[in-house]
Amino acid sequence: MAKWELIEGSIATPRGFRAAAVAAGIKKVPSALDLALIVSDAPDTAAAGMFTTNIAAAAPVGLCRRHLAASRGRARAVIVNSGNANACTGRDGSHAALITAREVAKLLAFAPQQVLVASTGVIGVPLKVEQILRQLPILKESLSVENASSVARAIMTTDTVPKSVVLRGKIQGKTVHVAGIAKGAGMIHPRMATMLSFITTDAAVAPHALRTMLREAVRVSFNAISVDGDTSTNDTVVLLASGLSGAQVHRNAGSGKHFRAGLTELCQALARMIAKDGEGAQKLVTIEVRGARRASDAERIARAIANSPLVKTAIAGSDPNWGRIICAAGNSGVRFDPAKVEIRVNDFVLCRKGLDTGFDETAAKRELDAKELTVRLDLRLGQASARMWTCDLTHGYIDINASYRT
Amino acid sequence: MAKWELIEGSIATPRGFRAAAVAAGIKKVPSALDLALIVSDAPDTAAAGMFTTNIAAAAPVGLCRRHLAASRGRARAVIVNSGNANACTGRDGSHAALITAREVAKLLAFAPQQVLVASTGVIGVPLKVEQILRQLPILKESLSVENASSVARAIMTTDTVPKSVVLRGKIQGKTVHVAGIAKGAGMIHPRMATMLSFITTDAAVAPHALRTMLREAVRVSFNAISVDGDTSTNDTVVLLASGLSGAQVHRNAGSGKHFRAGLTELCQALARMIAKDGEGAQKLVTIEVRGARRASDAERIARAIANSPLVKTAIAGSDPNWGRIICAAGNSGVRFDPAKVEIRVNDFVLCRKGLDTGFDETAAKRELDAKELTVRLDLRLGQASARMWTCDLTHGYIDINASYRT
Repeated sequence: MAKWELIEGSIATPRGFRAAAVAAGIKKVPSALDLALIVSDAPDTAAAGMFTTNIAAAAPVGLCRRHLAASRGRARAVIVNSGNANACTGRDGSHAALITAREVAKLLAFAPQQVLVASTGVIGVPLKVEQILRQLPILKESLSVENASSVARAIMTTDTVPKSVVLRGKIQGKTVHVAGIAKGAGMIHPRMATMLSFITTDAAVAPHALRTMLREAVRVSFNAISVDGDTSTNDTVVLLASGLSGAQVHRNAGSGKHFRAGLTELCQALARMIAKDGEGAQKLVTIEVRGARRASDAERIARAIANSPLVKTAIAGSDPNWGRIICAAGNSGVRFDPAKVEIRVNDFVLCRKGLDTGFDETAAKRELDAKELTVRLDLRLGQASARMWTCDLTHGYIDINASYRT
Repeated sequence: MAKWELIEGSIATPRGFRAAAVAAGIKKVPSALDLALIVSDAPDTAAAGMFTTNIAAAAPVGLCRRHLAASRGRARAVIVNSGNANACTGRDGSHAALITAREVAKLLAFAPQQVLVASTGVIGVPLKVEQILRQLPILKESLSVENASSVARAIMTTDTVPKSVVLRGKIQGKTVHVAGIAKGAGMIHPRMATMLSFITTDAAVAPHALRTMLREAVRVSFNAISVDGDTSTNDTVVLLASGLSGAQVHRNAGSGKHFRAGLTELCQALARMIAKDGEGAQKLVTIEVRGARRASDAERIARAIANSPLVKTAIAGSDPNWGRIICAAGNSGVRFDPAKVEIRVNDFVLCRKGLDTGFDETAAKRELDAKELTVRLDLRLGQASARMWTCDLTHGYIDINASYRT
């Protein structure tokens, strides 16, 4: 199967998409980009979304779910703001999301249910919807392929870098693009689509197939990262497929397999960027669990390790404290034999058959000093494995979160 | 029902108990107390224990379980060391725990299964059992009521203060004591008996009743605290009842009700001390959830809030970020209506009917600046409630854990 190629580009690189971003004054820093619009020019654009499972889901999440259901998986536009989550904002918040979608629809002559809304930022503060509405005509005028790279900046909150990936591949001899942006640094937890990500493609995919393939890709990407174990009220992943490449993707054919591979690669690249840019993070940590009886066992153990503050602070301090890794695994609820376990950092063995190997401390520290490292735990019970991404837990996380709101 | 009175004293205040502590060289600091012995002089002393659910349970935990089963809830001595957890230490670790119990038994002329062993400290480092055995004759000579207060110091690891509570009450006109010590500051999670606690009483209680009452007390005390969501490999709570007060406690009689009240009060006092002394903690935080449909719902929500790093860092920074509290509740998996929720800090209302009250920011900060504060969440759905204790998440936690082992 041909590889997908990583190219320079933006969310609007796939044919049919344009985008724009402006500073609407929602963020406290006056000139900061905080409002963006992504538009598809193809009338039949298919859309799929995955959203937070948090019971206190934000107003725009509810709106997206209703609109995708009403349109049977068709959407033409996504309007997204940062600086305010529009969560825990009651009826006024729901109304703000609805008005925003309606005004975007009116301006672009779309059906209202073809407009999706997303928000990120502080919870519980009323959203001043007029700040958004005022900018809509300007956003419309600015829509272009060139402006699209600023959209990745406009959705940032505590992110330190914009996160954007563009892949190019061939399906049925036709050039196909998959492009995605993401934001997220705190309140990241992998039980669902994590924080905001918007993905566009010019492949032609039916809505149902798009939804299935998105769910599969999210499971091993956005659902496999953890920064702090908190699941946001606003998590949203939206995938739009314009079909303008002319390449038809069928889920159970070779085209589906190939498209899914690219989509998964893109989602994993964005997910790793989120983990790496975790609040206060200095290191990107991959957790690999193998030798499990079942994949679900491996996943639970990987998750327990990725969420352990004791493991994450030890990694911050380059402390080869493998006892905390086995302790976290022991808390996962999965049955295993501690006396069989092998633990490595990268390829360096710390623990074999559940016991300290008497490793060289300086050499182990050197492995842990790397900016990107892998913690490997082998249960030696079976063939199943799982992988997660997380980051170390540092003073930076405390600094950012002790005063986020004020 | 008469109240229990808080008095000055030590673990050996209940009649029949003596204790001693020495510096055995297990901790790195040469003169630090790190080995202690608690002995009951009453041949029929009843014993109950609760232990970690971690699958990688330490060697002494396995030994305690076996000994309590073999003795049918009778024990005469507890030997405990700090500085080494004797966890992930394989056969040698199990052997070290067994040899320790046997040598204590021989020295004191007890049956081996009447000796319990506990350890706390670093995981995965072989325990030098000769460091313990060498001190046993000295410990035996030092046993006394007076020395017992040093036992609370000898079990400390990252604790900043020793934790000890003594209660005095009357049952059947006879004076009864319940005394307890505890240690624990990190790797604290409330799914079981948390870290080490040793409790003595001179009440006469049958082993089965003792076990039941300990389980009930632990549920609302040690199982209701959380520092960092990690469950240790070594968690142990042991309760010894000498019976030498002459007061007979029967579980389903008034004496049982009264004893249970004292035991619960003692366990809660120790549990709060652990939460307050959480690694890096500056504040003791009580989480109160009320208005739930079921107690289990209230408990799950309280636990989710108590474990949220975002809530805990906001409290560290005195940031009245109630959105994070409702977000954490929304992640608990419990169904509730966010639009009904009320959130207070102490008696200060931050959120009513799920919405910001427009509270005075300075006044809210003042409430959060307190060294002890209560976060109150009312679901307004029913009558059930739950309470947990936790602490704020600060730079101190990171400092301690980034280099604990090395």
